Amino acid sequence: MKGFKFTGIAAGIKKTGVKDLGLIYSEKPCSATALFTKNKVVAAPVILGKKVIENGTLQAILVNSGNANCFTGDKGMKDAMHCTRMVSENLNIDPDFVMVSSTGVIGAPLPMDKFESGIPRAVSNLENSDLNDFSDAILTTDTCRKIVSKTGTINSLSGLKSFSIAGIAKGSGMIRPDMATMLAYVLTDVSIKPDVLKKALFHANERSFNRITVDGDTSTNDTLACMASGAGEAVIDSDESLTAFGSLLDEVCYDLAKLVVKDGEGATKVAGITVKGAQTQEDAFKAAEAIAHSNLVKTAIYGEDPNWGRITAAAGRSGAVVDQQKMDLFFGDTALVLQGQWLGLEAEKEAASLMKQDEIQITLDLNLGEYFDHFLFCDFSENYVKINADYRT
Amino acid sequence: MKGFKFTGIAAGIKKTGVKDLGLIYSEKPCSATALFTKNKVVAAPVILGKKVIENGTLQAILVNSGNANCFTGDKGMKDAMHCTRMVSENLNIDPDFVMVSSTGVIGAPLPMDKFESGIPRAVSNLENSDLNDFSDAILTTDTCRKIVSKTGTINSLSGLKSFSIAGIAKGSGMIRPDMATMLAYVLTDVSIKPDVLKKALFHANERSFNRITVDGDTSTNDTLACMASGAGEAVIDSDESLTAFGSLLDEVCYDLAKLVVKDGEGATKVAGITVKGAQTQEDAFKAAEAIAHSNLVKTAIYGEDPNWGRITAAAGRSGAVVDQQKMDLFFGDTALVLQGQWLGLEAEKEAASLMKQDEIQITLDLNLGEYFDHFLFCDFSENYVKINADYRT
Repeated sequence: MKGFKFTGIAAGIKKTGVKDLGLIYSEKPCSATALFTKNKVVAAPVILGKKVIENGTLQAILVNSGNANCFTGDKGMKDAMHCTRMVSENLNIDPDFVMVSSTGVIGAPLPMDKFESGIPRAVSNLENSDLNDFSDAILTTDTCRKIVSKTGTINSLSGLKSFSIAGIAKGSGMIRPDMATMLAYVLTDVSIKPDVLKKALFHANERSFNRITVDGDTSTNDTLACMASGAGEAVIDSDESLTAFGSLLDEVCYDLAKLVVKDGEGATKVAGITVKGAQTQEDAFKAAEAIAHSNLVKTAIYGEDPNWGRITAAAGRSGAVVDQQKMDLFFGDTALVLQGQWLGLEAEKEAASLMKQDEIQITLDLNLGEYFDHFLFCDFSENYVKINADYRT
Repeated sequence: MKGFKFTGIAAGIKKTGVKDLGLIYSEKPCSATALFTKNKVVAAPVILGKKVIENGTLQAILVNSGNANCFTGDKGMKDAMHCTRMVSENLNIDPDFVMVSSTGVIGAPLPMDKFESGIPRAVSNLENSDLNDFSDAILTTDTCRKIVSKTGTINSLSGLKSFSIAGIAKGSGMIRPDMATMLAYVLTDVSIKPDVLKKALFHANERSFNRITVDGDTSTNDTLACMASGAGEAVIDSDESLTAFGSLLDEVCYDLAKLVVKDGEGATKVAGITVKGAQTQEDAFKAAEAIAHSNLVKTAIYGEDPNWGRITAAAGRSGAVVDQQKMDLFFGDTALVLQGQWLGLEAEKEAASLMKQDEIQITLDLNLGEYFDHFLFCDFSENYVKINADYRT
């Protein structure tokens, strides 16, 4: 990605000795924007990040895993500010252009000695490392890297201009659609004004990170940040160029969100639920969210059981207006229920065979109106319980 | 219980050959009331039950397990009405005084031949069976009977009068506090008017079945019905007698609700969460509900980990007004967080040792106001997943 450097090192924050401190650096100050968790219990770096992003400019992002710096009081805020200063001094850049993020266990103070020795080492490592190192450093219970990279073109007066967008995310538990629900950093080489970038990122987030769930819990540290270096040849200065850029940004965020769901704690399958025919947008959202969050639906998917009763029951308790006599339900293209009538064992057998796949699409048509919404979620296995019962030990 | 007879037989509705058809019969028509699921997808017997209960009188309740008679269209309604008629004919009572309930798999039609042979057999069995037989017949994934029986006294003008209340419940999955969340039948020998009984049952339900959760899903069949035979010596005709009766009814419902949580699918522990110091009643409810529903909190309890970060984070996302700098958090009497400050490893060690017990009480004081609320919930083990992944196979 033009204009950016990356690194990730093992600073000793995690006891296991794996990479735990990542840094993104841009040669020049970038047009930037960010979205944060809507949880009212928030980590110190989120409180600080909201202030830092106000000026619409970033040049570096420091991310540590292994410790969330959350519920750490005044000391947590001082620590986050101290990290900011260290990054600024070591890179010789404006401290107002530095954002810090943390992810990991809640409640323990940051081990500042590890940051004091780690930050200079990370900075001097920028020349010898890449996106993969950064990605490795920000993971927690994730079982794999989550990187999406795409290129597009913009038709400008002086001919076709190409541009790139790359995104890196972490997250596989405490995932719920009430803002970004994990850490994600999206980088691009376009020239774009911060307020335009902000709208584009908001749009992309609504259709991606705000429509996924693993376990229905919202993290205290969720951050989605975007930096545009302007080091490439494309300039976003017209409706047409914004459309091209916006669509690619939507795609990158959607693909990243899907990677998060796919790597959901204990997940073995990815499922999509589309609720259509709702009377209002809110009803479509509510019904889709209730289904995506239902432990009973998720365990049935794990068991490869097309248990449509649980799906319609979740829609029924969602608060959305529904009429069970009008519902149609599909697994893939296979109808299981039409106008509230179960189609029988043959249809169910066909649906059951579809469920053996890694990705399952479920569609519930309420047949009451024109509105629809879509959620991505994962199934629920014994491993989710194992991972989360023993997380801190 | 004076005035009531019970039975439970194996009618062949369940393939396993266990008891699956239960009957409660009162010698005389009873003052009666009932509460039903708030799910908009509802089973035929719930639609019918709402009509039947309007007259405030019941003389018999037929309950089958193994089939929920839900999402079964017009046929489901006809079947429920046919069962009602068969009970009425065999007992020679008014069909308007018969309620039917069903619980089990959603979507399959009732096997009416089993009811046609089973109902006469159940009626003729009333003389030779008891409450335990009825209780056995209504269970599904439950691992044990849920029966609570208590006696009280009322100070009347003609001296002390004793009375009894007995409750029978079933339910261990699809449990969420949005109405009764399972099947429960409460019987008493007092004389009481239906409208007074209705208010007393609503009150008892609010503090019991509406404050428990196993998995956050609401059943389509939830029913809580209460019959008062008047066969005993106590008459509820004054504020004082209503207070005595109401408190005992509250106790019976609370104890039954606790039995449901204790037998929650895969549960190994019962937990209570009290949120106090909330600015409004709604805030107290929201925060307590979010904590009780959180899979991360529930898996931590299973892992005997006093993971207070997950508890405070759940409160933070609940929608309730919270200030993390003011929160106090206790496990039993042990403070883990005071005024937003973690008290350290010693306190956590003490809390961890408390978590080895079967029952855990957690208290979150928001320190913002005077309102409080309380939920009962269970932990979340690998067995919940196992039970629900394979439920229909």
